[in-house]
Amino acid sequence: MSAGSEGVFVHEHTVRFHETDRAGIIYFSRVFEYCHIAFEEMLHAIFGSVDTLFRHGTWGMPLVDAHTRYLKPIQLDERLKIELRVAKLGRGSVRFAYRVLGPDGSLRAETELTHAIVNLAEFTPMPVPPELRAGLEGLGLVAPD
Amino acid sequence: MSAGSEGVFVHEHTVRFHETDRAGIIYFSRVFEYCHIAFEEMLHAIFGSVDTLFRHGTWGMPLVDAHTRYLKPIQLDERLKIELRVAKLGRGSVRFAYRVLGPDGSLRAETELTHAIVNLAEFTPMPVPPELRAGLEGLGLVAPD
Amino acid sequence: MSAGSEGVFVHEHTVRFHETDRAGIIYFSRVFEYCHIAFEEMLHAIFGSVDTLFRHGTWGMPLVDAHTRYLKPIQLDERLKIELRVAKLGRGSVRFAYRVLGPDGSLRAETELTHAIVNLAEFTPMPVPPELRAGLEGLGLVAPD
Amino acid sequence: MSAGSEGVFVHEHTVRFHETDRAGIIYFSRVFEYCHIAFEEMLHAIFGSVDTLFRHGTWGMPLVDAHTRYLKPIQLDERLKIELRVAKLGRGSVRFAYRVLGPDGSLRAETELTHAIVNLAEFTPMPVPPELRAGLEGLGLVAPD
Repeated sequence: MSAGSEGVFVHEHTVRFHETDRAGIIYFSRVFEYCHIAFEEMLHAIFGSVDTLFRHGTWGMPLVDAHTRYLKPIQLDERLKIELRVAKLGRGSVRFAYRVLGPDGSLRAETELTHAIVNLAEFTPMPVPPELRAGLEGLGLVAPD
Repeated sequence: MSAGSEGVFVHEHTVRFHETDRAGIIYFSRVFEYCHIAFEEMLHAIFGSVDTLFRHGTWGMPLVDAHTRYLKPIQLDERLKIELRVAKLGRGSVRFAYRVLGPDGSLRAETELTHAIVNLAEFTPMPVPPELRAGLEGLGLVAPD
Repeated sequence: MSAGSEGVFVHEHTVRFHETDRAGIIYFSRVFEYCHIAFEEMLHAIFGSVDTLFRHGTWGMPLVDAHTRYLKPIQLDERLKIELRVAKLGRGSVRFAYRVLGPDGSLRAETELTHAIVNLAEFTPMPVPPELRAGLEGLGLVAPD
Repeated sequence: MSAGSEGVFVHEHTVRFHETDRAGIIYFSRVFEYCHIAFEEMLHAIFGSVDTLFRHGTWGMPLVDAHTRYLKPIQLDERLKIELRVAKLGRGSVRFAYRVLGPDGSLRAETELTHAIVNLAEFTPMPVPPELRAGLEGLGLVAPD
């Protein structure tokens, strides 16, 4: 079995007061933030400073599709586990699949985020950069070519 | 043709500084906020104070599914138009479809938000309350029964 | 009496669900967002597109001090009035004073935001640009020189 | 020298993409969130689940004053250190003083947050609860009585 079909990157996040709403649970779109935070930590693990990457990089990864299914409410102060997997590595796009788990291991939400790869100079499509592919391989998130 | 197949509720929103990120455009999950704001204005049009509705209501509408397709970047200070339609009125759930349009009329994002109806006392499923159905009819968003 | 001592710029804002927290009222730092939104509308009234201003401008206005006194809770769906006044126009800084009023006219919060003026190329201090001073005069927020 | 004059509670926070704005640095009011996060971690250290505290507690700590001085910009992905100290323990209020430090140890912002203590049933003032005082003592943030 290849590393790519199994690889997972895990990030922990504690639910904060400003992320809850007057219904007493987190505001629904916070789940997208949580997943993006895990994505940022993954970029950090590959490239080091994400600020430098965004400041000097020639390519970007704008979101083209974002989808969450909510299974169970998420409460203030819960210590969540966010699992990131590569769902699809296309020629010019990457789809990540996320699972948000509560401290009791129960599944709270499932999210898919699809990024296009663009040339930042002209905001036009381009293939997945080799350094990104290599980084995903290095973390065991995709199988070696 | 019934009003229900055509009805649309429109809300305008101006893009604010805190909604943008260091890529210079809005952070992707803000689109979900924008659609929920249109939803809140719709509730206000039906029920008056949304605070009273949430404080004294016996039913709630938690999100169970949220999906956005991003078509074109959204910039600071743009005066957006958000269109809300009822995509599906189920027995115990409602799905709203949103279109986010730029000041030039171009489609920026398409969103679907699906809410379950729950009894707030026990957080258990219940049918769409008659006063909500009547309100949606009153706004021409669903055809009369 | 000079225009400067009297001038006020007013912006209205409706409190949204994502701005509340599990205490059932707005999360405290939202007041700073509300005041900054009024500031952005003021820039829009002076310069037109704030995006263009930020994209092509040679000067910026980073915050150096932010202070709010909270007088009364702010609830979901309240239609607030935010008053902006120029508290002090210094050589290289501007301080705005804000009052956040509820729909009943009661004072909910008082805020002061102090901006330094900087040369964006080098992020070094510079005097208040004449076009900003002229714009504030044009809105009656400061007395003519 | 008393523990109270020295005690500090430290929390680390990594700056996330959604916390930045189109100026490329964090949106100014995020500093208030960061300090409140440190405060929540402190409550967690004293009481365990903050959700339980808010759900079943009889007293609350609404903010009455919030003040930040900004000294140096804060960038995406920086690993910040947030120091919390008790600036003043009054009869019916607590003021915390915060310092936000960059990974290089440089001071980025100084914040003061003043909370009133209120009886949640009637939202009326009440003295600092003994369990809060004891908890602050237990963390070495105030000197024993």
